[in-house]
Amino acid sequence: MPPLQTRRRVEFRDTDAAGIVHFSAFFVWMESAEHELLRAAKVSLMERGDDGVDSSWPRVAATCEYTAAVRFGDEVDITVWVEALGRTSVTYGFVFKHHETDVANGTIVAVRCRLPPGGRPEPIPISPEVAARLEAFTTGQLTRPT
Amino acid sequence: MPPLQTRRRVEFRDTDAAGIVHFSAFFVWMESAEHELLRAAKVSLMERGDDGVDSSWPRVAATCEYTAAVRFGDEVDITVWVEALGRTSVTYGFVFKHHETDVANGTIVAVRCRLPPGGRPEPIPISPEVAARLEAFTTGQLTRPT
Amino acid sequence: MPPLQTRRRVEFRDTDAAGIVHFSAFFVWMESAEHELLRAAKVSLMERGDDGVDSSWPRVAATCEYTAAVRFGDEVDITVWVEALGRTSVTYGFVFKHHETDVANGTIVAVRCRLPPGGRPEPIPISPEVAARLEAFTTGQLTRPT
Amino acid sequence: MPPLQTRRRVEFRDTDAAGIVHFSAFFVWMESAEHELLRAAKVSLMERGDDGVDSSWPRVAATCEYTAAVRFGDEVDITVWVEALGRTSVTYGFVFKHHETDVANGTIVAVRCRLPPGGRPEPIPISPEVAARLEAFTTGQLTRPT
Repeated sequence: MPPLQTRRRVEFRDTDAAGIVHFSAFFVWMESAEHELLRAAKVSLMERGDDGVDSSWPRVAATCEYTAAVRFGDEVDITVWVEALGRTSVTYGFVFKHHETDVANGTIVAVRCRLPPGGRPEPIPISPEVAARLEAFTTGQLTRPT
Repeated sequence: MPPLQTRRRVEFRDTDAAGIVHFSAFFVWMESAEHELLRAAKVSLMERGDDGVDSSWPRVAATCEYTAAVRFGDEVDITVWVEALGRTSVTYGFVFKHHETDVANGTIVAVRCRLPPGGRPEPIPISPEVAARLEAFTTGQLTRPT
Repeated sequence: MPPLQTRRRVEFRDTDAAGIVHFSAFFVWMESAEHELLRAAKVSLMERGDDGVDSSWPRVAATCEYTAAVRFGDEVDITVWVEALGRTSVTYGFVFKHHETDVANGTIVAVRCRLPPGGRPEPIPISPEVAARLEAFTTGQLTRPT
Repeated sequence: MPPLQTRRRVEFRDTDAAGIVHFSAFFVWMESAEHELLRAAKVSLMERGDDGVDSSWPRVAATCEYTAAVRFGDEVDITVWVEALGRTSVTYGFVFKHHETDVANGTIVAVRCRLPPGGRPEPIPISPEVAARLEAFTTGQLTRPT
C-alpha cells in the first residue's frame, strides 16, 4: 500500500496578514492527514479498554520546514506515511506540494497511551495487530527506534 | 459594579490575507471576555452537581456587527456586560473599540444546562445566587426575557 | 439553480474541551461555504479595478443559532443561498445538518467595497452582471433591502 | 538583559476534545512571544526599505516537544531567547512551564528577507544594528550557524 495522498484547498482562515498561509496551519493539516491515515488503516484514534480506561495517541513532538508559500484558494497536495514505528511510538512523515512545487515537510511523533482520568498519560505497547496496520503505510525504509 | 473592561493586543494568527483581523476572531474574543466576567463574578464555567452530572453554559446564539477594521499589533478595548437575564439564559453584550473608535459590537446567549453523559443538554433554572452575581454586571437597563 | 450544498468532516482543531465543535468554527465554515458559492457563481472574491484599486466583500454582520452539537469526525451538511440582495450588500443564509438533524443556522452580510490603500472601505453598487449571478443562488423568496 | 518572560492564560479556543490544549496552539504562543521579544528589542517585524520593498522575517522551520498537558484556564509561563544568530537567520528558543512544571519546549527559525511583490522572498543579511539588539536576548551560549 502506498503512502496516503490527500488534497485540501487553502481556506481564508488559514491565511495571515502577510498574505500567505500561517505557519501554524501546516500542523493542523498534518493532524488531519494523520487522522485520515488512521481511518484508512482502521486504527481507532481513541478507544476504551476492558478496564474502562481510554487509550489514545498524544503527540510528543512535531516539526515543520517551510520552503515556499501557499495562498488563499491554492490546492495543497499532502502525502503522509509511517516513517518509524517503535514499541510505543509512531512517527509520521509529511510532504506538502502545490502544483509539484515543494511547499513544506514535517513530522509528528505520537505515543500510544492509556489516559487514566485525572492522571498522567501512561505509554503502552502498540499491539502487533495495530503495528501491522500501520506498517502498511510505510515507504519501505521503515526505521525502528528502540 | 460597572461592566467589565478588558484589553488585548491583536495577535498575528487573528489576521487574514486581507491584512485585517478575521471576522471570526471577534467571537473568540467575546468568549474570552465572557469567561473573564464569569471569573470576576465568581460563577463557575463548569461544575459538578450532587448527582455527579456536570452543568455548564452552552451557547444558543451569537451575533456580531463590524464597523471598522483592526490590524496586527493594535490594542482592542473590550467591554462586556449582562444585557438580559432569563430563567435559564443569560445574554451578554460586547463593544470593541480601538483608540475610542467603534470597531464592532456583539451578543452571546448562553443557557444554563445539565450535561448528562451521552445525552442532550437539559436547560435548568439559574439559581438565585448565581443570578444575583450576574446582575452585578448589568448596565442598569436589564431586560428579562421570559 | 438550487442553493449550494457542501459537506465537511469535523476536524480535531474545530473541537474544544467540552468535547464538541467550538461555536466559532461555524463562522469559519460559513465563510468557506460563501467562498464556494462565489466560485460556483463565477464572482471574484477580490478583483482589481481599472483604477488599480482592489474591490472585495468585507462583512458587516454575522449571526448563528445553535440547536445541536457536532463532534470530531462527524460529517456536516451545509446549505448556503443568497437570502437578500441590496444595492451594495448581499446576505447569505446557511443551514447546518448532521444526518438530517438540524445543528445550526446563520447569516452573513457582506458589502461590495472599494479598498483604497490606507483608507476606509467605500461601499459601491453591485453590478447588474454580478447581481444576476448571485440571484441564481436564491431560494425564490429573495428580499430586497433598500 | 535576561531572556524575555511572558505569561498567558489558556483560552477555551486553544483546547480540543481531548480536554487539553491543542498541540498547534504552542506554535501560535511561540509566535506571540517572538513578536513580544521583537517589540522589546525595538526590531521591526515588517519594514519598508529605501527601494519601496518590504522586509520581514518569514519562518523556515519550527519544532515543539511536549512533556505535559495544560488545560483551560491554566496560566502558562513562557520564556523566549535568541538561541542562534546567523548571517541571515535567527533561531529562537522557547520553554513553557505551568507552576514550575515543564510543559513544552520549542524552536523557531526565521530568516531576514526582502519580499518583492509577486516574487519569492530573498534572504538578506541581518544588519549589525539589528544583530546587536537581538544578541541582547541571548542566554550567553549563543551559537553562530554559518
